[in-house]
Amino acid sequence: MGPRAFLLLLLSFLAPWATKALRPALRALGSLHLPTNPTSLPAVAKNYSVLYFQQKVDHFGFNTVKTFNQRYLVADKYWKKNGGSILFYTGNEGDIIWFCNNTVYFYYDNLEEMFCSVYDQALLFLIDSRHLNFLTSEQALADFAELIKHLKRTIPGAENQPVIAIGGSYGGMLAAWFRMKYPHMAVGALAASAPIWQFEDLVPCGVFMKIVTTDFRKSGPHCSESIRRSWDAINRLSNTGSGLQWLTGALHLCSPLTSQDIQHLKDWISETWVNLAMVDYPYVSNFLQPLPAWPIKVVCQYLKNPNVSDSLLLQNIFQALNVYYNYSGQVKCLNISETATSSLGTLGWSYQACTEVVMPFCTNGVDDMFEPHSWNLKELSDECFEQWGVRPRPSWITTMYGGKNISSHTNIVFSNGELDPWSGGGVTKDITDTLVAVTISEGAHHLDLRAKNALDPTSVLLARALEVRHMKNWIRDFYDRAGKQH
Amino acid sequence: MGPRAFLLLLLSFLAPWATKALRPALRALGSLHLPTNPTSLPAVAKNYSVLYFQQKVDHFGFNTVKTFNQRYLVADKYWKKNGGSILFYTGNEGDIIWFCNNTVYFYYDNLEEMFCSVYDQALLFLIDSRHLNFLTSEQALADFAELIKHLKRTIPGAENQPVIAIGGSYGGMLAAWFRMKYPHMAVGALAASAPIWQFEDLVPCGVFMKIVTTDFRKSGPHCSESIRRSWDAINRLSNTGSGLQWLTGALHLCSPLTSQDIQHLKDWISETWVNLAMVDYPYVSNFLQPLPAWPIKVVCQYLKNPNVSDSLLLQNIFQALNVYYNYSGQVKCLNISETATSSLGTLGWSYQACTEVVMPFCTNGVDDMFEPHSWNLKELSDECFEQWGVRPRPSWITTMYGGKNISSHTNIVFSNGELDPWSGGGVTKDITDTLVAVTISEGAHHLDLRAKNALDPTSVLLARALEVRHMKNWIRDFYDRAGKQH
Repeated sequence: MGPRAFLLLLLSFLAPWATKALRPALRALGSLHLPTNPTSLPAVAKNYSVLYFQQKVDHFGFNTVKTFNQRYLVADKYWKKNGGSILFYTGNEGDIIWFCNNTVYFYYDNLEEMFCSVYDQALLFLIDSRHLNFLTSEQALADFAELIKHLKRTIPGAENQPVIAIGGSYGGMLAAWFRMKYPHMAVGALAASAPIWQFEDLVPCGVFMKIVTTDFRKSGPHCSESIRRSWDAINRLSNTGSGLQWLTGALHLCSPLTSQDIQHLKDWISETWVNLAMVDYPYVSNFLQPLPAWPIKVVCQYLKNPNVSDSLLLQNIFQALNVYYNYSGQVKCLNISETATSSLGTLGWSYQACTEVVMPFCTNGVDDMFEPHSWNLKELSDECFEQWGVRPRPSWITTMYGGKNISSHTNIVFSNGELDPWSGGGVTKDITDTLVAVTISEGAHHLDLRAKNALDPTSVLLARALEVRHMKNWIRDFYDRAGKQH
Repeated sequence: MGPRAFLLLLLSFLAPWATKALRPALRALGSLHLPTNPTSLPAVAKNYSVLYFQQKVDHFGFNTVKTFNQRYLVADKYWKKNGGSILFYTGNEGDIIWFCNNTVYFYYDNLEEMFCSVYDQALLFLIDSRHLNFLTSEQALADFAELIKHLKRTIPGAENQPVIAIGGSYGGMLAAWFRMKYPHMAVGALAASAPIWQFEDLVPCGVFMKIVTTDFRKSGPHCSESIRRSWDAINRLSNTGSGLQWLTGALHLCSPLTSQDIQHLKDWISETWVNLAMVDYPYVSNFLQPLPAWPIKVVCQYLKNPNVSDSLLLQNIFQALNVYYNYSGQVKCLNISETATSSLGTLGWSYQACTEVVMPFCTNGVDDMFEPHSWNLKELSDECFEQWGVRPRPSWITTMYGGKNISSHTNIVFSNGELDPWSGGGVTKDITDTLVAVTISEGAHHLDLRAKNALDPTSVLLARALEVRHMKNWIRDFYDRAGKQH
C-alpha cells in the first residue's frame, strides 16, 4: 500500500479524469457497498411506495429556510394498524432503494411494518454544494426525527406505535446514534456492522486490515502470504519498461501501466481484497460485484503458492482479481480506475470523511498482508482542505456520541460478522444487559440484514432470532408502559 | 394585559428609544433575572479564576473555522484532586459572573469542586450578528462538551473525575438537556427551576400567570383581586387627558403618559408582578432589584381593599410598585421603560425566543389576575421575522429533547419552588427512580441554588439535602464502576 493509500478512501473518484490523482485503494472503507448498477432492482422492490417529505436543509440554524425533498420508502403490507410497530431503516450514504433491496428483508417478514428512510441528503446536497455544510450525521438524525414525527402525524394508526431504528454499516451507526440521541423517538436500535469505535484511538488503527488478512489466511493455504509477497513482486516488475508492459498484459489491464501508476495499481488491488472481505457471503451474491459463494475461498484457490517467480505470482493474482471483476465472464479487461463503487454517494462520503467521520486506518505488513502504511492526519487534513476547503475534526464524533463511554444508553443491539473487517471498530461484547453484542462467526458485512437464503449459516440464523427477540421485548415493554399510563 | 403583551417578553428592549414599540411586560418570562447592575459583585466573587477557552462558533458545520473566546470560571479551593468531582455550572443567557455570584454557593460548600461555564455565547454573538445563527441550545451543549474535554485535558487530576451539570432557569434546562444528550460527559444533572415543559401544549399556556396570581392571592387578603381590578381602573382613568395627567402623578412616573402608552404601562405593571413572583424570597435580596424579605407580602399590605375608587386603587398600586422599584428609597420617579433587566442578555434571549425557545403563555382573567390574552404564534412569528429575519420553530425543542417522553434518561434532579411561576412548566413529579422531582413549598425561582441564609425555610434545606444526596450517589456510582473496570 502506498504512502497515501489510506487517504484514497476519501478522495478517490473526486477527479476520475485525473489519472495521477486517482488512488482508489480502500475507498470502500469509506464509501461502503455502493452498487455498480443501482437500477437493477430485484422484483421485491415493488413492495414499497416511494414518497417525499419536505425536509429542512439546516435543523440547527435559523438563517436559512431552505428545504429539500427527502425521498423515503414505506412498506406497510403486513403492518398492523392496531398494536403494530414501525421499523425505521436509517439509510446510508447512497441510494435508498438499492440499500433497501439489499437489506432488512428478513425483518420485514417478522415484524409488523417497515419504513425506509433515506440518506439522500448526500445526493441532494452534492447537487447544490452550498448545502454540503449540512451533510453531517447530526443533521441526518434530525432528519429522521422530523420524518418520524411526520409519519406519526400523517399515517392513521402510527401515532402511538413504537419505532425501532435499523441500519447497517454507516446506517448502523446512525441507528445506534439515533437511539442514543433521540430515545424518545425510538424504543431501540439494531446497529448492524456499525463501526462506532473506528474513531480516534478507540481501537488500534490496524485492526481493519488485520481482519481482512485473517479472512484470506483462513480461506486457503498460503493465501494471505501470496498476497503479502505480491507487492514486492509488483515493485520489482515495474522497475523496467518491459516489466510494466508485461504486467499490463498479465493483469489484462485496459490501459498500459506507467511507473506513475504503480502505487495506484497496488491501491486498486488492496481495495479489491478489502471489498472481498466485506462481501465474503456464503452464497452467490451481487452486492459490490456479482460473486460466487464464499468468494475469498474461490480467490484463494489461485493463491496457494507464494514461493513462485514474480511473474507466476502476478499471473495468479490476476486469476484471483478476475474472480472479483469478471465472475460473469463478460469483462474484456480490468480497469484500475474502477472497483465496484461509482456514485455520488462516494463523493458525499468523501466530504463526510473530511469533516466528522474521520476513521484512522493503518497497516504494518506483519499483522496484515499489506505494505506498511501509518495513519497520517496531517496529510488527510491538507488534502481535505485542498479538495473541499474544510479540515477534519477527528475527535468530534467521540465528543458527540461518547466513544466507549456509552453504558448509560439502553436497547441497542450491535451485530457484527467475524469475517467483516468493520467488526474491528464495532461493539463485539455486551456493554450492559440492554446494550448487547451479537456476533456472527460466519458473517461478513451485515449478513444478518440480507434476505433469507437457504445457504444462511446457523450463526446468522441464531443472530437474527436473537435480534428479533430483543426487538419484540422493546415493543412489548413499550406497550406495557403505555398500558400502565391508561 | 394588552393584546400583544406576551410578545413583549421577546421583543422588549430591542429598541429602547422607540417608546411606541416598547412593551416590556413579561419580558422577564423570557429573559430571566438579569441584574440592574451586574458589576456590583459580592466579596465572594474572589473565589474563582476567570479563564478563556477558544470555542468553535459552529460545532455542526465545517464551512467556518471561526472561534470565540469563551469565558469560564474555575473555583477549585476545596477541590480534591484525588477522588473528587467536578460541578459544571451550565451558564445562562447573561453574565456568568453575576449568575455565579447569585447561585450554586451552597453546593460549593458541600462538594469538592465547581467550575462555572458561561453562556457568553449570547453576548459575544450579538457583537457580531453574523454569529446569531449559532446562538442555539444545541451549540451551547456542544460548547459545554468541548469545554469539559478541555478541562479534563488540561487540569491534572480532573481527567478521571465525574462531572455533574448544575444550572438554574434556562441554565437548568441546559443542565438537564446536557445530561440527556451527553450522558457520557455528565454523570447527572441538577436542573433547578427549569421549565423544560413550557413548550407547545405540554402544559396549559395559562399555568404561569395562574401561579403568579396564586402567589399574590396567598400573600395577603384581596391582594390578587385588587390587581385584577386595577386594569379596568387604569382603562377608565386613561380615557381623559386629565385622567392621564392624574395617573402620571399618582404613579410618580418620570414621563407624562399619553393614551398610546397605556398598554405599555399595563404591561410594565404586569411584568413587575411577574418579577416579584420569581423573587419572592424569604429574606432581603437583590436579585432583580433590592427587595425586602417576602416582598409580595409587603406589596400586598398596600392592596388589601379592591373595593375602593379607581383613584385610590391606583394610589395603592403605586405603593405596591414602589416596594419593587424603590425599596432603597433613592428613586425619584418610576420609569416604565425599565423593570429590572437591561443587558445584552435580554437581546440574545429575544433571538432565542424567536427561534427555538418558543414558550406559549396566555391569560384569561379568571384563573389569573391579568387581562385576558391568548397565545398568538402567528403574531410572534411575524414580529420575529421583522426583527431578526427568522421565524420560530415551536415544535423543535420537543423534537430535539423529547417533551414529556424522557423516561429513558437517568440521573436528573428537577427542583422547583411552588411559588415560582416557572414551576408550571417544570417537572414536579418523579418520572422514574432516577429522574426525580424535588419540590420546595416555600421556594421562588431556584431558591435552592442561592447562598445559605439563616432565614432559609425548612423546605429548601430539605431540598438541598436531597439534591446533595443524589449527587453523592452519582459520584459514588461513578467511582464504583471505575473501580470495577480496573
